[in-house]
Amino acid sequence: MKQDTLDMALLYDFYGELLTEKQRRLFDLYYNQDYSLGEIAENECISRQGVHDAIARAEAALRDYEDKLHAVSRYRETGQALRRIGQLAQQLNTSPDPAACMAAEQILAVIESIKE
Amino acid sequence: MKQDTLDMALLYDFYGELLTEKQRRLFDLYYNQDYSLGEIAENECISRQGVHDAIARAEAALRDYEDKLHAVSRYRETGQALRRIGQLAQQLNTSPDPAACMAAEQILAVIESIKE
Repeated sequence: MKQDTLDMALLYDFYGELLTEKQRRLFDLYYNQDYSLGEIAENECISRQGVHDAIARAEAALRDYEDKLHAVSRYRETGQALRRIGQLAQQLNTSPDPAACMAAEQILAVIESIKE
Repeated sequence: MKQDTLDMALLYDFYGELLTEKQRRLFDLYYNQDYSLGEIAENECISRQGVHDAIARAEAALRDYEDKLHAVSRYRETGQALRRIGQLAQQLNTSPDPAACMAAEQILAVIESIKE
């Protein structure tokens, strides 16, 4: 049943705070710490099916938030645009015009600053 | 009781889909269409206090989503960074190096593309 781990980790980064504490704990063990459903069930003293259902509900909730809010897709679009701008600024760094080089460096610094 | 309209409109843009249909309708009439509490109460056939409370709950819910998800503050930071990059690219447009001008134009085009 495991969904694409990177996709799920990103959805969790954006919307995890809206899940219940239990959903967050089980989701984190399964997707971020790579425990199996059986291992989580044993540690949490609930059935394997119970773990499965709780994680499935968490996945559905995260997908539903993304369908409504689109924060992950916006983040991906912005990231793509910033990478493209970064490439263009890198090219500018080789310009014979010193002012162009300086502006390029400042652009790269701005991009770095919002990555943090 | 009216909160900062621009702030509220932005929170509503990001998280409005998570409100109930009734909250959305009352919030929209009050903040986006500028009806008074009394006018909304009359149109909706509920008390002025009822409208007040529903809108207050919607405001609190929107603020709570922002406290948890920070989508508006991220959007503002990214917007600020893109404006700064845009200013730097505008300066580059006056470079004597034709390659720098071309790269600057491409950067401005990328910025325009994510504004849409």
